[in-house]
Amino acid sequence: MTIPMPDVQQFPDTRRIAIDKVGVKNVHYPIVVQDKNKSRQHTVARVNMYVELPHQFKGTHMSRFLEILNSYRDEEVTLNDMEPLLRDMQTKLGSECAHMELSFPYFIEKTAPATGARGLMSYECRFIATLREEKDFILEVSVPVTSLCPCSREISAHGAHNQRSCITVAIRAEKMIWIEDLIALMEQCGSAPVYSLLKREDEKMVTEQAYQNPMFVEDIVRSATLRLQQVEGIKWFRVECENFESIHNHSAYATLESR
Amino acid sequence: MTIPMPDVQQFPDTRRIAIDKVGVKNVHYPIVVQDKNKSRQHTVARVNMYVELPHQFKGTHMSRFLEILNSYRDEEVTLNDMEPLLRDMQTKLGSECAHMELSFPYFIEKTAPATGARGLMSYECRFIATLREEKDFILEVSVPVTSLCPCSREISAHGAHNQRSCITVAIRAEKMIWIEDLIALMEQCGSAPVYSLLKREDEKMVTEQAYQNPMFVEDIVRSATLRLQQVEGIKWFRVECENFESIHNHSAYATLESR
Amino acid sequence: MTIPMPDVQQFPDTRRIAIDKVGVKNVHYPIVVQDKNKSRQHTVARVNMYVELPHQFKGTHMSRFLEILNSYRDEEVTLNDMEPLLRDMQTKLGSECAHMELSFPYFIEKTAPATGARGLMSYECRFIATLREEKDFILEVSVPVTSLCPCSREISAHGAHNQRSCITVAIRAEKMIWIEDLIALMEQCGSAPVYSLLKREDEKMVTEQAYQNPMFVEDIVRSATLRLQQVEGIKWFRVECENFESIHNHSAYATLESR
Amino acid sequence: MTIPMPDVQQFPDTRRIAIDKVGVKNVHYPIVVQDKNKSRQHTVARVNMYVELPHQFKGTHMSRFLEILNSYRDEEVTLNDMEPLLRDMQTKLGSECAHMELSFPYFIEKTAPATGARGLMSYECRFIATLREEKDFILEVSVPVTSLCPCSREISAHGAHNQRSCITVAIRAEKMIWIEDLIALMEQCGSAPVYSLLKREDEKMVTEQAYQNPMFVEDIVRSATLRLQQVEGIKWFRVECENFESIHNHSAYATLESR
Repeated sequence: MTIPMPDVQQFPDTRRIAIDKVGVKNVHYPIVVQDKNKSRQHTVARVNMYVELPHQFKGTHMSRFLEILNSYRDEEVTLNDMEPLLRDMQTKLGSECAHMELSFPYFIEKTAPATGARGLMSYECRFIATLREEKDFILEVSVPVTSLCPCSREISAHGAHNQRSCITVAIRAEKMIWIEDLIALMEQCGSAPVYSLLKREDEKMVTEQAYQNPMFVEDIVRSATLRLQQVEGIKWFRVECENFESIHNHSAYATLESR
Repeated sequence: MTIPMPDVQQFPDTRRIAIDKVGVKNVHYPIVVQDKNKSRQHTVARVNMYVELPHQFKGTHMSRFLEILNSYRDEEVTLNDMEPLLRDMQTKLGSECAHMELSFPYFIEKTAPATGARGLMSYECRFIATLREEKDFILEVSVPVTSLCPCSREISAHGAHNQRSCITVAIRAEKMIWIEDLIALMEQCGSAPVYSLLKREDEKMVTEQAYQNPMFVEDIVRSATLRLQQVEGIKWFRVECENFESIHNHSAYATLESR
Repeated sequence: MTIPMPDVQQFPDTRRIAIDKVGVKNVHYPIVVQDKNKSRQHTVARVNMYVELPHQFKGTHMSRFLEILNSYRDEEVTLNDMEPLLRDMQTKLGSECAHMELSFPYFIEKTAPATGARGLMSYECRFIATLREEKDFILEVSVPVTSLCPCSREISAHGAHNQRSCITVAIRAEKMIWIEDLIALMEQCGSAPVYSLLKREDEKMVTEQAYQNPMFVEDIVRSATLRLQQVEGIKWFRVECENFESIHNHSAYATLESR
Repeated sequence: MTIPMPDVQQFPDTRRIAIDKVGVKNVHYPIVVQDKNKSRQHTVARVNMYVELPHQFKGTHMSRFLEILNSYRDEEVTLNDMEPLLRDMQTKLGSECAHMELSFPYFIEKTAPATGARGLMSYECRFIATLREEKDFILEVSVPVTSLCPCSREISAHGAHNQRSCITVAIRAEKMIWIEDLIALMEQCGSAPVYSLLKREDEKMVTEQAYQNPMFVEDIVRSATLRLQQVEGIKWFRVECENFESIHNHSAYATLESR
C-alpha cells in the first residue's frame, strides 16, 4: 500500500489574490514554423507559457506546461496556429486565460540585388498569443537594415555616416500575414536592405542605394507607419527602430504605436 | 564668410505622423544617486532619453540630449528627482513630452544574520520618468532572494530543492520611497534573503530559515502584494518573480499588477 | 564595355604583418548535427569562420566564407565532420590555416527517474575546428546539474542550500565521442541531474538524491576529471563548473585542465 | 558550551587532484580606478577571484574572498596595483597562486574635433592579474571606432558603407601604461574615432575623415600592431577588431597576437 503524496499546489489559499500570469519561462524547444516558400521550417525557440491563477489555489502545476508542450512535439504541427495548445493549457491547468510567447530565429533565402547570389538571412521573430474568451495574437519581427544619415550626407563633402539599424515591428491582424511579407515591407523602410552574401557588384549597388536614400531613425519609423497603414487586415501595430550609430557608442532610437 | 550648414532636422515633414518617442538609447554614464545611509552613491547607468516629436518636424536634435545630460554632470546632483532635467529636455528639444530611463546597479551594505559580518550587495534599479503636463515616475528594483519549494519539502524524506530567485518590483508612489526600504520589503517575501558574505554560522541560519519558510513563486508574488498594499503612498505596483529552478534548466515565473 | 572593378582585397600590403585569424563572426545559420538516437537533428548555430591571412595581401574575401557555408547547406550534410568545409576554406581563400566555430543548442530526450515521463533537455554545444596541416577538433558542451552544498548540509538542522550549476567541458579525442555520452558522463558529476519534466514522484527522488550526494564546486570538477581520465580516446580536456549560488548573488566557480 | 561546527572545506581529499582555479565569479562591486586626468574615478566592476587549490584539501573558503575584497573597500585604494590584494588571497586562502579579474566601464572626457564640445565616452576595461612567485598583469580595453570599407568606396559612385567597430586590445607591459594612452593609440587605428557628443560641424569633420581614411578590419589590426610595436615597455599584446557591418547582419573580424 502506498500513501498518496499530497498535492501541495492544490491546497487552498486564503489570501484572496489572483495571479495574472504564472508558469514556465525560458524553456528552449525545437519548433516547426510555417514557411511561405517551402511549407515548413525547423528552428529553435525560447518558450514562455503562463496561465492566470484563481485566488483560491495555492499554486499551478508546472510540469503540465511541459507535458502540453511535449504533446505537440511528435505531431510536428506548425505552431503558427497556437489555439489548440492554448486551449489545452486552459483545460489541463484549469484556467480561464492561457498565454504563450515564442521567440525564435527565422531564416529566409535572399537574393543579392546585382548578381543574384543567394544567401540565408536570419530574423528574430516572436509569437505572443493569449486565449481568454477571445484570442489575441501578436506577431513581432526584428529586421536589420542599413540607415544612412541625411544630415551627414547634406553637410559633408564626401560620404555620409551609415550603420546597421534594427526595425522591430509588432502587429495584430485580422488575417494571416506571412513573416516573409512583413519582413519584405520593413526592408523597404531603411536606406537599403541588409544581406548575408554580397559580391562586389552587389556591394556597389547597396552602397549607392543607401547614399541615394538617406533616412533618419525618424524617417524609418514614419516610412514603416505609412506602409503598415496600407496593409489590409492589420488592425494594430507598433514599430521601433534602433540605429547602432557608426559615429557614436550609443544608439539613436524612435518608436511609434498605431492609435 | 561661412555659409551656414543646413539644419536638416528642422526641415518640414509632410507625412503628418507624430513620433511617440525619439532620442538616444543605451548611453553609458556615471551618476550619483541618493543613498539613505550615506547621502550619495556613485554608480554607472545605462541611459535612454526620448521626446515626443511633433508631426511637422523631420527630426529631433540628437546631440542636445547628450548636452543636457552633460549639463547635469558637473553639479553632481542626485538624479532621484529627475524633473529639472526632463524640463530641460522639453524646452531645448521643443517637445511637450520628455521621457528618461536610467538602469544602474545600486549597492547596499548588508549584515550577515548570525555573525554580523558585513558585505556589499548589488541590486539592479531603474528609474522611468515621464514629464508631460503631469509627471510620472516609476521606481523598479530587482531583488535576489532564496526560494525553497514547498512541494519538494513536503514529499521528500530529507531536504528540499531551493534556488536563487529574482523579485522585480515596480512602483508609482505619492511620496518618496527609498530604494533601501523597497528592497528590505521584498527580501521578506522569499524563503530567505540573499547575502554577499556569509560565515558558517550565517549559512546554517539562512539554510534553516529557508527550510522553515517554503515558498512557491506564487507565494512570493502574493506575499509581495500583501506587503506592497500596506505601504502608505504606493498607488500602483507590478511585481514579478523568476525562480531559476535548481532541478530544471528553465524558470518558474509569476507576475501580478495592482488594479 | 564594362571596366572590371578593382579587387581591393587583392592589393599588395607592404606592412609585412600576417593576421592570425580573419573572417566572419556571428553568422546565424540552420545546421544539421549527427544525433546518436535518431540519426540527425535540426538546430540553429552561431558560426564564426576565419582563415590566416598571409602578410602580402591587403584583405581576405569575406563573401567567400558565406558562399562556402551555403554550399554545404543544400546537401544537409552533418557538420560533425567539418574537414571538407575547412579544406574548401583553405583552397578558396588561399590560406594555409582554416578555423571554424559553431555554437548551437542540442536537444536530448530524457526520462524522469521515477515515472519515466519524457521531456526534452537543451544543451549548449560548441565545435571548434582548425585545419592546418594537421587538424584539431574541440567538442565543448555545457551541462546543467543540481549541486547541494556539503557544508550547509553538515551544519544545518534541516535541509541544505542547493542550486543550478553549469558544468562546461571541452575535449580533444582520438575517436568519435558522442555529445550524448559526454553529457551523460557529466550528469553523474553533480548532486543530481537536471530535467525538463518531473512529476511529483520524480521530484521526491531528485530532491533526495541531491541531499544524499552533496558536492562542492570543487567536488564536481574533480569528479568530472576522474571520469574524463577513464574515457578511452580523450587526449585533452578542460572542465569548469559554475554554481549559481542560491544564498548569494554571485557564483562559486572552479576550473581544471588536463596536463 | 558550544560544539564547534565542522570545517567541511578543510576535510582531507584523497583524489589527488589539484584545481587550477577556484573561487567566486561575477561579484558586482564598486571600485575606484586611477585616472590620468583627475586622479581617481568611481566605477562599478564585475569581479572574479580565484586561487589554486592543492590536491589535499576538499574545498576553498568562499567567504574569505569577499572578506578580502571588502577589506580593500574602505581604504578606497585604487585597484590598479592589485598586488597587495593578491598577496592577501595567497595568505588567507593558503594558496601559491592567486588570480583576479575586474571588468568595468571607464569614462574619459573627449573633445569634439571641430567645436570642442565635450562629452563623456565609456570604454569597457579589464584587469587580469595573477600572482604566483612572479606576477602577471594584463590590461584589456575595448575601443569603439568607425570603419569605412575601402572596397565599397573604391567601387561606388558615391559614399561607402561604414559602421561601428570595436577594437579590443590586451597588453602586458614592463611599465605603467595609462588606460587613456592605450585608448588614444587605438582610436588612431580606425577610419575615425567615435564620440558621444558631436555638433554638426563635428559630424561633417568625422564623416569626411572616415571617407578619406578607409580601413578594412585587416587594416585596423595591422595599424594597431604597428603602433603597439612602437610603444616602449609593451612586451606582449593581442589585438582584435570586430566590424558590425552596416550591409550585413554579421560581423567582419580579425585578430592578431604578438610573437
